[in-house]
Parts: sequence; structure tokens; C-alpha cells
Amino acid sequence: MTDAPRLFEQVCDHARETAVLGSIEALCEWDERTYMPAAAGSYRADQITLLAGMLHDRHTDPQLGEWLEQLVGSELTADPHSDTATTIREMRREFEKRAKLPKRLVEELARAAVLGQQSWQAARAADDFAAFAPQLEQIVRLKREEAQTLAMGDCLYDGLLDDFEPHEKTVDVTRVLGELRDDLALLVAEIAASGRAPNRDILARDYPIDDQRRLGRQAAAAIGFDFGRGRLDDTTHPFCTGLGPDDCRLTTRYRTDDMADSLFSTLHEAGHGIYDQGLRSEWYGLPPGSAVSLGIHESQSRMWENFVGRSRAFWQHFFPQAQEIFPAQLGDVTLDEFYWAVNDVRPTLIRTESDEATYNLHIIVRFELEQALLEGDLQVSELPAAWNEKYQTLLGITPPNDTLGVLQDIHWSGGAIGYFPTYSLGNLYAAQLFAAADRALGGLDEMFARGEFLPLKTWLNENIHASGQCRSAAELAEHLTGEPLSHRHLIKHLRAKLGPLYGVAAG
Amino acid sequence: MTDAPRLFEQVCDHARETAVLGSIEALCEWDERTYMPAAAGSYRADQITLLAGMLHDRHTDPQLGEWLEQLVGSELTADPHSDTATTIREMRREFEKRAKLPKRLVEELARAAVLGQQSWQAARAADDFAAFAPQLEQIVRLKREEAQTLAMGDCLYDGLLDDFEPHEKTVDVTRVLGELRDDLALLVAEIAASGRAPNRDILARDYPIDDQRRLGRQAAAAIGFDFGRGRLDDTTHPFCTGLGPDDCRLTTRYRTDDMADSLFSTLHEAGHGIYDQGLRSEWYGLPPGSAVSLGIHESQSRMWENFVGRSRAFWQHFFPQAQEIFPAQLGDVTLDEFYWAVNDVRPTLIRTESDEATYNLHIIVRFELEQALLEGDLQVSELPAAWNEKYQTLLGITPPNDTLGVLQDIHWSGGAIGYFPTYSLGNLYAAQLFAAADRALGGLDEMFARGEFLPLKTWLNENIHASGQCRSAAELAEHLTGEPLSHRHLIKHLRAKLGPLYGVAAG
Repeated sequence: MTDAPRLFEQVCDHARETAVLGSIEALCEWDERTYMPAAAGSYRADQITLLAGMLHDRHTDPQLGEWLEQLVGSELTADPHSDTATTIREMRREFEKRAKLPKRLVEELARAAVLGQQSWQAARAADDFAAFAPQLEQIVRLKREEAQTLAMGDCLYDGLLDDFEPHEKTVDVTRVLGELRDDLALLVAEIAASGRAPNRDILARDYPIDDQRRLGRQAAAAIGFDFGRGRLDDTTHPFCTGLGPDDCRLTTRYRTDDMADSLFSTLHEAGHGIYDQGLRSEWYGLPPGSAVSLGIHESQSRMWENFVGRSRAFWQHFFPQAQEIFPAQLGDVTLDEFYWAVNDVRPTLIRTESDEATYNLHIIVRFELEQALLEGDLQVSELPAAWNEKYQTLLGITPPNDTLGVLQDIHWSGGAIGYFPTYSLGNLYAAQLFAAADRALGGLDEMFARGEFLPLKTWLNENIHASGQCRSAAELAEHLTGEPLSHRHLIKHLRAKLGPLYGVAAG
Repeated sequence: MTDAPRLFEQVCDHARETAVLGSIEALCEWDERTYMPAAAGSYRADQITLLAGMLHDRHTDPQLGEWLEQLVGSELTADPHSDTATTIREMRREFEKRAKLPKRLVEELARAAVLGQQSWQAARAADDFAAFAPQLEQIVRLKREEAQTLAMGDCLYDGLLDDFEPHEKTVDVTRVLGELRDDLALLVAEIAASGRAPNRDILARDYPIDDQRRLGRQAAAAIGFDFGRGRLDDTTHPFCTGLGPDDCRLTTRYRTDDMADSLFSTLHEAGHGIYDQGLRSEWYGLPPGSAVSLGIHESQSRMWENFVGRSRAFWQHFFPQAQEIFPAQLGDVTLDEFYWAVNDVRPTLIRTESDEATYNLHIIVRFELEQALLEGDLQVSELPAAWNEKYQTLLGITPPNDTLGVLQDIHWSGGAIGYFPTYSLGNLYAAQLFAAADRALGGLDEMFARGEFLPLKTWLNENIHASGQCRSAAELAEHLTGEPLSHRHLIKHLRAKLGPLYGVAAG
């Protein structure tokens, strides 16, 4: 007879040690993108490649596979949402997926990702797509091989999407993003036709970086990011990463001519960080203590960035603090002027600087292009032209160069193909979950206006963060909101906010 | 017949992969001491412990031992100073040493070191030696077990000293430090009796940290530290570490009331960094591309800090730059006032802030105490009193509390027992090697006064850095200077510099 609890402990110990190794790799990557000297890139690739190989060995350890096999059907799996059943189910799923991949491919991908990012950084700075193209070609080739080897679902893309959004299918994402696009295109067109615009110049006054840093930290701390268990550093392309149960690293960048850029990116990353810090530490590195998907992760960052940070209520509380830090720049600005300026909607070139409404059109461009690259319907050399064409079609603008176009994002250079749609899923989940929290807690806006963010954070901690992977993203959303994922909540939110500002229909 | 070149390549590949893993551990430690959030300490200990165990497995891999065994006596060992012979000799020595240590002890030591440093940091901040004592007791117990297991040389201490100063023996260090102490005591007494003192207050004017940062970077770059292949960050206890062949990390700390503290600590760490950056990258992680000993490493840091940085010639060149950065603080100060202020000699409490002459008395206190702890002649509980007594005897002062006394240094908390004497060996090597460089290059002072530091750096690169471990520290010094290590060069240097300042005998 199998001693399931003893076996289960062995599985957990194995996973915990893997998590320690994984967190070391995360530190290597964090350092690469924050402090590492430029010349150290090639040796850093050696370091990350070595760790990736070791991690692959542990993830695909046949002993682990046997243990998991023996646990299937044991009493520990009786309740599918329990921590034990979740651990066994998700680890087994992950094991079977990874076991398909040859170590050679995993190591090649790890190295290509590090070198790709370094090549991308140089190419972006020099506006030289051709210099980056060979690296990108290799990455696409390796990712295609990965997708073919995984052979999950109906199309190649399913296998890559699953890395970021487990259990999600390309066909479902295509449907919901299609519906979203139609309603968004209408809204964006109405706003453009309104002829109205806020005074965005007030955000472009000279904002010294040290003061922006202070405001950003203040805002992140106010919404509940715990700086005793985390940090905020500078980088080129902001991200958040966890290096351990009590070590969450946020990063941001600063522009002296746009104070909104770093402020909202800091709130965004802090939203990710609050999720990480809300995971149950006793299950660190195991499915019950891990984020359920990138879509849900992004729902947390977007909720704090947009549903909280871009709300009028938030600025009722926070604007006096901003004025105190920037008396010369914001002293003559009213709350409403500022609120509108940070909610300005208009087609722009850069995804990370785009507004809440047009943002998802940027994602749809990438979602379509990366599927075409993967399927071989589009060659890397054709990518810049295809990118520009789609921007013209969907957003009505054409990038003047590749730095402001196809070279703007880090993702593909690091091998992250299948990642982009999780941003839009995140926006949709954010809207739907925020509406549920608002119903459950009643009057979030009044709380924000009083500077009370703890009730929302606690609701998210209890209902989303603590759930780990006990329910899939889609299951969790349906469980908490009573309906499957729909684009309607986001459209409703946008119209309710933007209607009064631009004089377009509010619902 | 053995194919020695093929075997040798296998050995090198093995060592190179070990070096990659070792550099990852170094990154974990660097981050712990610069940016890691306080709450992340216990997980960081898990990370470092895991890596230490993996490293131990690789260092003691029986396959490696067999390969090395087969290479002994091969044609590759014909010239003892060749890269191949050095690799085989030093790796075999290291293998045999490490193979004696059980993995359990190695992991316990790694964990005790991380937790010990964290405990020390808190105890130092709270001036609470008792809170740190249990950790230190454990460390002493483990280090004693290590020394007993290694059983190198005539006394327990030999085994620990060898980690930092390979091939060196306690009895020889005791002799040379004894001779140094006698001559130093005389010099320090003469200076005290002179009744003369510089105006140190000029260094204690309000020096903003950002400006100090600028001056420190400028000085480090001027003497030849390559910021394209390295960095300078803030920490509590300055150190330098290498995270790869092109990734050297310096750290320093800043005090607004003592501009000399960070400036000379930056020059010191930059000296270490210049050694690291001067090692042959193609041998990275192998004996021909590794530092020969901590004593020689320290000779490089002390040479740039004291023999260059505290020379009058250096300030002839650099003082106008310092005045430009600090016009309000240094505008009314003369070169000679400043030069004397940074060369002030008097007994003080803190080793890292002490002057060139009394510094070695601080080391002798630690060297004697750690031997007594290890042999069991002194209990941890008796350490603070013993520390204070020795300070009274050797320096004529008694620390008012343990933060300014026994808790000031990080070393013991991290398991580094046997490290301290390498500081004094470094001072002695620095004096002897600097004299040789001066003879070889002729008129270093004139070069410094013109801001020319490259000739000295190049001489060090070619004669010391490029030599790696092809000669032991003692062999290298004798090879370059024509005589064995002696305390006389340091005494000569100190008397030549301090004689005119204090009106005592200059030779």
C-alpha cells in the first residue's frame, strides 16, 4: 500500500529545492536587468544557461514523475481544490509537459533568450532591427521546435500560450479579444471624433527623478506594497520578480518629461508585487503558493494601476501629496485637470505608455504577428513592415522608426512568445474582478478618497492570492464573479469613466 | 598511454563549470550585502546553502580526482611555473583538501555563515554582543571541526589560514608580525611623544554623499578601474567581489562627517578590483587566472590606497579635482594640510578607519584572539573582555562599547577565521612590491604628480596579476623583489613619510 502523505512530503521537498534554484536564476535575471555591467553579458548567459539546465533536470527528474504517478487517485486528490490535490495535479501537468522537451532545446532557449535580450537592447538603442533579426530568427525557430514538441491543443500557439496562461486555448483568446476589439474600436473612434483633449503638458513639465522616486515609493507603499519584503530599482523595461517568499523586486524607469510614465508603471509593478507578497509563503514554490496565471497576475497590476491609480477617488486622496512633492510643477493644476491628463485617450506608438482604451489594440497587433511568425506565415525580415501596417490599420498611425515600432518590447527577444495576450486577459480579468470586489465591499471609491486601500488589498489577498493554483484562471474568475470571462466589464468601466470626460456615451 | 592534453581539457571544462556556479554564489552574497531586503535573509541562506552543497559536490567529484591523479607526472607538469603544471598542482591540492571535508560540515558552515552575518548585523546595530554569541559559538565549533578534519601543519590554525593564504604557515606569520609589532610600537610611541597633529577637522566638514560618490568614482577610474567591466555600490562593510571575468563589483559606504573614509575605502576596493580585472580571462576560474592569495590581493588594494592614494604626489594631481567638487569644504585648505590630515597617525578604535601605522596593531589583536578561540583557550563569552584588554595593551585605548570593539568586523560572523593576518601580510607585500616597482619604473612619484597611473598598473598587470597562481605568494614576492618577505620595507616607507610630518626619525 502506498503511504501517500509520506510520498507527498517527498514531492514537496523536491519542489521546494527546485524553487530555491529557480529563485537563484531569477536573481541572475534581475541583476542582469538592473545593475550588471554591460560587458558581463556573455558570462551571465553562461550562468543562466547552467541554471536552466539544472532546473530542467530537476523538473524532469524521473523519480519525481514516479512519485506523482503514484499519488494520482490517492486520498489526497479527493477534493480537487484542496492544496494537496492542486499540488499533485499541477505538478504532474508541468512534469509531463517539461519531460517532452529535450535538455538541449531548453539550454539553447535559455542562452538564446539572454543573448537575444542583449542584442535587442543594442538594436533598440541604435534603431537597427537588422542587427537583431538573426537572434530573433533563432528564437522563433527554437520556439517553433518547442511548440511542435509540446504539441498541445489545436495549433502551435497553444503550447506556448500554456506557459503563461495554463489551461487557456488560443481559440478562446481569439474570440474574446475579437469582441473586445470591435467595441474598443467604436469607443476610440467616438473619442477621436469628440475633438476634446486634456492638457497633457502639465505631466511634461520638468519633474526631477529623485522627487519622482519619492512619489512612486509613497504611492506603492500606500496601496500596500511591503518594502520590508521587497525593493524598487531602476531598469529599462519595468518588471517585477520574486526572489523568495520575502523578496519581491519591483523595477521602474524615470523620464523627466513625463511624470505619469514612472508613477503608473510603479503602481503597476507594485500591483504585481502585492500579488507575490500575498501568496501563501508556507507553499512557496508549490502550486498552492504560486500565481495562477500571467493573466490573473496582470489583472492585479492593472487593477492597482488603472482601476485604483487612475480613478478620480485615488487622486482626491493623493493629489495633495503629489502637489507637496512638486509644488512648482503642480501648484497651479486642479485635481480635475490632472485626473483627465492621466486618463487621456489617443492612439500612440508605445504600448507601455498607451492609455487604458487603446492599450488592447497594441496587444492585438502583437498577438496576431507572433502567431504568424510561429506558423511561418510571416518571416522575421518582413516583421517591421507588417508591424507598421497593423499599427496603421488598428490605431491609425505608423511608427517613424523601429525603435518606436517593432523594437519597443523586450518579450520576443527573451523568448516570450505567447505572453502578450495575457496583458489583455489581465485587463479583462481586472475589470470583472474589480466589479465583484466593489459589489462585495461596497463603495470602494469612497474608501480610496479617504486613502483606504487595505479593504481591497485584503479582499484580493483572501480571494485571489491565497487561492494559488487551486483553481485555474478561468475557474477562479467564474467562481468569484458568477460568470465566465467577458469583455463587457472592461467596456463598461471605460465608458463610465471616459464618457463624462469626452462627452461620449457613458454606457 | 594517457592522452594528457585531452584529460587536461576535461579538467579545465569541469573547473570552468564549477567557476560559473561559484560566481552565481558570489552574486547571491553580493546582493545580500547591497540590495537584499532585510526580511529575505533566511531564504537567502537556503539559496547559498544549496549552492555551497552543489559546489562541494563538484569540488570533490571523484572523477575529477582521478583525472588529476592521472595528470601527475605527465609532460604537462614539466615546468612547475607553466599554466598547465599550475592548474594540475593547485587543483589537486584543492581537491585533496576539500575531499577531506564531509558535505554536511560544508553545508552547516555555509548556513552558519549567512545566519551569522545577519545576526552580527543586528547585534552590531544594537550593541548587543550576547545576542550574537550563540551564532559565533557555533561558527567557532564548526571551524574547529574543519581545522581538525583538515589537519594541515603544526597547529589547528594552519588549516584555516591556508584557505586564504595557501602554502603559508602560522609560525612564519607569527614571526614576521612579531617583528613588525616591535618596530611599529616604537614608531607609534615616537609619534605620540611628538605632540604634533594635523587638523583633521577639515575632513569632517559636511560632505554631501552624492558629491563623495562622484569623487570616489573619479578616483577609482583615474587609477585604472574599468567601470565598463564593473560597478561601485553602497554597503555597510566595503568589499570587492568578482561575479565573472568582466563583472567586478566594488562596494563602499559614505559618512557625511568623514570624506576620507569612503574615498580611501573606494581606492582600496578599486585596488582589489584592478587585480581582478587584470587576471587572464582565458583562465577564468582556473589557477592561472585566479588570485594567488588574499595577502597578495590585499597588497594590491593597500598599494593603491596607501602607497598611491595617500602619497603627496597623488594629491598634487588630485587635490584640485577634490576642491572643484567641494569648493565650500576644501577651498580654504592647502595641499599640505590635506595631505597631513589623510596621513594622521594615532591610536583609534576602528580597524577600517585606522591609519597606515597603527592598522597592523589592530590585526595583531585579532590574529591572537582567533587563534585562542580556535584552540579553546578563550571562550566566546570571554571575548569582549579579552578584546578590550588587548586594545588597552597594544593601542593604549579601551572601546567604550562592543559596537566600537569586538563587533566592528564582519569576518568571524561569516566564518572567516584565519583571514585577518592576510591584511598585514598585504601591507608588507605592498611595501616590498611597491619598492620593486619604483626601482623598475623609476620615479613613480613624478608620474603620480602628473596623473599618470598607467605605468604602475601595467607593471602590476604583467608581473603580478597575469601570474595567477603560477607562483605562491611567497615565491612571487621573492621572484619579483629578490628577497623573502620582510617587515623592513613597510617600516622604511612609514618612517620616510611620517618622519617629516611628525618630526621623528625618517629612516
